[in-house]
Amino acid sequence: MKPTPSDSEVSQSTSEILLPAGFRFAGATGGIKASGKPDVSLIVSDKPCVAAAVTTTNQVFAAPVTLCRERSPTAKCRAVITNSGNANACTGRQGDLDAIQMGSVVADRLECEAEDVFVMSTGVIGQPLPMAKVLVGIENAFGNLGDSAEHFIAANDAICTTDAYRKNVSIAFEAGGQSYRLAAMCKGAGMIAPNMATMLGVVVTDFPMSIEQAPQALRRITERSFNRVSVDGHMSTNDTVVLMTGGDEQSVVTDEVLDEFVAAASDACLELAKLLVADGEGAVRFFEVAVEGAMSDADALTIAQTVAASPLVKTAITGGDPNWGRIVSAAGYAGPKMDVANTSLTIEGVTVFENGQPVTIDAAKLSETMKSAVEVKLRLTVGTGSGASEYWSSDLTVDYVRFNSLYTT
Amino acid sequence: MKPTPSDSEVSQSTSEILLPAGFRFAGATGGIKASGKPDVSLIVSDKPCVAAAVTTTNQVFAAPVTLCRERSPTAKCRAVITNSGNANACTGRQGDLDAIQMGSVVADRLECEAEDVFVMSTGVIGQPLPMAKVLVGIENAFGNLGDSAEHFIAANDAICTTDAYRKNVSIAFEAGGQSYRLAAMCKGAGMIAPNMATMLGVVVTDFPMSIEQAPQALRRITERSFNRVSVDGHMSTNDTVVLMTGGDEQSVVTDEVLDEFVAAASDACLELAKLLVADGEGAVRFFEVAVEGAMSDADALTIAQTVAASPLVKTAITGGDPNWGRIVSAAGYAGPKMDVANTSLTIEGVTVFENGQPVTIDAAKLSETMKSAVEVKLRLTVGTGSGASEYWSSDLTVDYVRFNSLYTT
Repeated sequence: MKPTPSDSEVSQSTSEILLPAGFRFAGATGGIKASGKPDVSLIVSDKPCVAAAVTTTNQVFAAPVTLCRERSPTAKCRAVITNSGNANACTGRQGDLDAIQMGSVVADRLECEAEDVFVMSTGVIGQPLPMAKVLVGIENAFGNLGDSAEHFIAANDAICTTDAYRKNVSIAFEAGGQSYRLAAMCKGAGMIAPNMATMLGVVVTDFPMSIEQAPQALRRITERSFNRVSVDGHMSTNDTVVLMTGGDEQSVVTDEVLDEFVAAASDACLELAKLLVADGEGAVRFFEVAVEGAMSDADALTIAQTVAASPLVKTAITGGDPNWGRIVSAAGYAGPKMDVANTSLTIEGVTVFENGQPVTIDAAKLSETMKSAVEVKLRLTVGTGSGASEYWSSDLTVDYVRFNSLYTT
Repeated sequence: MKPTPSDSEVSQSTSEILLPAGFRFAGATGGIKASGKPDVSLIVSDKPCVAAAVTTTNQVFAAPVTLCRERSPTAKCRAVITNSGNANACTGRQGDLDAIQMGSVVADRLECEAEDVFVMSTGVIGQPLPMAKVLVGIENAFGNLGDSAEHFIAANDAICTTDAYRKNVSIAFEAGGQSYRLAAMCKGAGMIAPNMATMLGVVVTDFPMSIEQAPQALRRITERSFNRVSVDGHMSTNDTVVLMTGGDEQSVVTDEVLDEFVAAASDACLELAKLLVADGEGAVRFFEVAVEGAMSDADALTIAQTVAASPLVKTAITGGDPNWGRIVSAAGYAGPKMDVANTSLTIEGVTVFENGQPVTIDAAKLSETMKSAVEVKLRLTVGTGSGASEYWSSDLTVDYVRFNSLYTT
């Protein structure tokens, strides 16, 4: 049984999905996955819209990532086409041609330009994309398009790979005194790491903005959501998030109204990001590292990220082990300045280290508390500065190792 | 069964240990470890000698680390006293006083100054050092001192914690046309990480050098040995390596002769370092990442280290899985510039990726080769630069996770 974040407002019930108008969705099966599960996902904007993409910062990046970079931002976006089951990464010149063809076939059907379509792929690295199957999947997807919650979910399911469950979120929000909607989906369970978009994701909204505002807003949203989580610290070659908006070439909003959108969208995407770590390969629980008292927010984030990445911290979370020395020592090698005499740590609200001194605790009781939590909360004060940040990670389990020792062979 | 590096010249046979003259060794039991195993180790130089220490760069560092820093370098070193079973880290003011007392008691017995003694501790973090037991152990150690191979091994055994086997190396070497000896021991199996001394180690040699030359030589040696290995990337609070030499206040050697010493000592310590990763907690095999074609040696080292640290690479090694996409993609997020069109990878000599293109391989056969290796060799070319470096790491197994999920509770 996989946990889901207890405080998540995400529901798998289709009746609660709040879709913005103007978008259609489809999932389809082309036969790329040996399992026969859906492997082609299509999202169409009824009219040309302002859209942007953020992509992996990995120097080894997949062919579709090149296209997303070239085509972002745009005021004429019509679609995002995604295949799962094959990453089209490390596939050389043929991979580039295949990615271009995926987009062109969709553009032909929509009677738009090739550059109006974003392309994403996810799956195994280094194998040629089976284009005949991809093309069948695209054809089937066009037959399945629709604007209901069921269509949205079908598109969501078709981007999944090792995910134990689908991940989506939708909200209604106000900005500039008007009501809007936002729906987002993502996939990912392994090769999830900080410093970029961390997986495949699509965010659709009827909120308008300009072509200049879209990439900046998306960057701010991902910094505050997907870039705050890690399963295994291994940055993928394919990670991409696409934002499709209600804007067109004439759209523009004030900075204040854009801030309202970014705040609402960031909260929604953080919910999605927590679903990613909760679904970390093999994970039995996940944990939050909240750091305060650092010299800057950036320092606090680096410390939180380092603590969250330590295999010794992750295995302590797995075991429900209040082994706080591992947590404090991980902060100590993170890099940013730490004031040990003013360093304190709480685990699930229990102070275990205070101003550089160990605190006598009931370790067995605290262990029970940790074991019964879906999300273990660590709060680390590293000095008297005003810098603070949070980071989320899944634990490291026997099943993670089993799963990843047996992946391709 | 733990593997040992197949190419290691290290022997557990006492007859082959080549000890330099002028040093005595002892292991003793003070009762710090619940297991009743030896937990106090003493190494004495018969006369005051030139010595130096390198210590952890973790900002959270143990009380004895403070003493080693204050007392290094010295031309009057008489002893290194070490306890295992308790790290004396995160123990506040009392921890500082306990570390000072450990050294002072030894200095009193040797009729030297407190600052002539180095102090090291290893074990659990955050618990007060049981001083009564430590003092009993020190008393017993003085009764056990001797200059034979058996005494050296007893001192080695008494620094161990979760080690599956003792780790030592000894060599005879020539420098400046003269013959010398060097013997070194270390401990460590978890919380092993790059960027500093990575564990407890003592190197003793009859090779002379000045107080200015000793810390510089030790830094160069550790950069080329202990800082090239990682088990879990978690830098400890206690890591320390002490070098005791045959030098006194009058000693000095030329730069050329010192280079001969550094080369011989680095090779010997790299053998020891490989024993550390072979004994990584839960490890079934270890692996070498050799990177070439980078813009600089430092860039190559960063890439090698990043590949070696990836949980996905480590689990692929565990499973004997030639999943080369994980290796190439880890290099891609390491940071230093990579030229993908000139990137190639071999696994155990088999080319799997060449100049940015996948190569068709017999994956089942390569998997068998990997599974039968104790040390899997990965060779990654990342461009046409002249930078090259190597790094060693243990794999990541179900047993590592099991062991570290159950450590204190």
